[in-house]
Amino acid sequence: MKVVRASKAGFCFGVKRAVKLSEEASKKKGPVHTLGPVVHNPQAIERLEHMSVKEINEIREARRGTVIIRAHGIPPEDYKVLESKGIEIVDATCPFVKKAQDYARMLHDEGYAIVIIGEKDHPEVRGIKGHAKEATVIETPEEAERLQMCGKMGVVVQTTQEQAVVGKIIPILFNKTKELRVFNTICSATGERQEAVKGFAGKVDVIVVVGGRNSGNTRRLAQIAGRIAPTYHIETARELKKEWFRGAKTVGVAAGASTPDFVIDEVVKRLESY
Amino acid sequence: MKVVRASKAGFCFGVKRAVKLSEEASKKKGPVHTLGPVVHNPQAIERLEHMSVKEINEIREARRGTVIIRAHGIPPEDYKVLESKGIEIVDATCPFVKKAQDYARMLHDEGYAIVIIGEKDHPEVRGIKGHAKEATVIETPEEAERLQMCGKMGVVVQTTQEQAVVGKIIPILFNKTKELRVFNTICSATGERQEAVKGFAGKVDVIVVVGGRNSGNTRRLAQIAGRIAPTYHIETARELKKEWFRGAKTVGVAAGASTPDFVIDEVVKRLESY
Repeated sequence: MKVVRASKAGFCFGVKRAVKLSEEASKKKGPVHTLGPVVHNPQAIERLEHMSVKEINEIREARRGTVIIRAHGIPPEDYKVLESKGIEIVDATCPFVKKAQDYARMLHDEGYAIVIIGEKDHPEVRGIKGHAKEATVIETPEEAERLQMCGKMGVVVQTTQEQAVVGKIIPILFNKTKELRVFNTICSATGERQEAVKGFAGKVDVIVVVGGRNSGNTRRLAQIAGRIAPTYHIETARELKKEWFRGAKTVGVAAGASTPDFVIDEVVKRLESY
Repeated sequence: MKVVRASKAGFCFGVKRAVKLSEEASKKKGPVHTLGPVVHNPQAIERLEHMSVKEINEIREARRGTVIIRAHGIPPEDYKVLESKGIEIVDATCPFVKKAQDYARMLHDEGYAIVIIGEKDHPEVRGIKGHAKEATVIETPEEAERLQMCGKMGVVVQTTQEQAVVGKIIPILFNKTKELRVFNTICSATGERQEAVKGFAGKVDVIVVVGGRNSGNTRRLAQIAGRIAPTYHIETARELKKEWFRGAKTVGVAAGASTPDFVIDEVVKRLESY
């Protein structure tokens, strides 16, 4: 069986940067915590834990030492809480997410009703929402249809959304307002990984998508892959099952922006042994 | 045969205002000219000519007296030419068109690459383009596809465009830029007249659209009507042909924003006599 790796797969710029900043922070004196998992990938987290970078889930758990803000970013209130506690902040917010936060704040200041296209409960979206002060989060054309009319509407997009889905939402929003101002904050890494998966069309019999089940961008990769060929979303090589590939001549391997290379390598190796 | 008149038809606010201003201007001393037809309707123009309001087609033909700027508006350079000649200006530019011009100017000042969705050679679009300084005019999704990528794109719309067509163009423009800012300058009168025609669906056997052949908004009404039932676009009752209505039980009559009531009345009367 031939194994084809997606031309773009694995860590994006923002995740690489966050992991690097976390590794550097691990050398600091005093406790070093990350507020939530630095990346949505259990295997990458495990490595950091070996370097004594521990995860906390609530800001109130942070008392002293250093807190790493992960690539997804946080709302402005959370910065204030950390600062008031005298905690050192290592800000690993992805620069592309920061841009989305900045646009949200600017749109708020200029009086726009703000719509965020993204996953309601995703930390990135919660962070952007905080910077927008007030915002409505939608993810589907159906949710867009239910929005009220407004005078001027400002839109920012979760960096890992699918361009085509957002493209379906935009004309619906256009019908809901006299002025529509959209910042397309989907990052290029997202588009590249999604295009790489689409490139599998007609070339592979089965697709394996590797990455955290809690990773939004990996889940969307798996959705896109599922439209192209039978698709399995796994976190590690151990989950692979030989019978998935019965009769398959070629298998495509894709991975989200938060999947470490060593995890992808293991999957490819295992598949090549079949 | 039953004749149903569209719930909204004929002169809109901006046209009524332009005709009223022209009638008032006719009483002024010295020659009174309109720069191009005040409204795109030969029958309405005829009435004004009886009041000695004469049409000129080129700004260089204006030498003295008064010049009426029609509802479609003009580029800023043309104001300057008229002012430099000491000509009195009666500005009958539709307030909704003026708004589109203002947005175009503002988008230019804020550094947007400007796209106007509308008819390239329509005077309203030429006027808006003048206020934008530089702009690309497109009218179809195909033309939108051919646009270059740009950093930030500002969009204004000819006031008489069809919302649904613009809605198809918007997501294509979204793919061409990082920031899309659209002012939906389609006026409510346009939407109302188009909706009134759509309301004929399933209720009439034939549609007659009344209005100038040089009227963009009337032409679009006829296009929309044509998707619903066999449609005839006429300028006056004299063009009606009995055979168009053979076997028809109900006929719908619609009219553009530049069609005078007396012209619609004549059409309805003639149809009722069949």
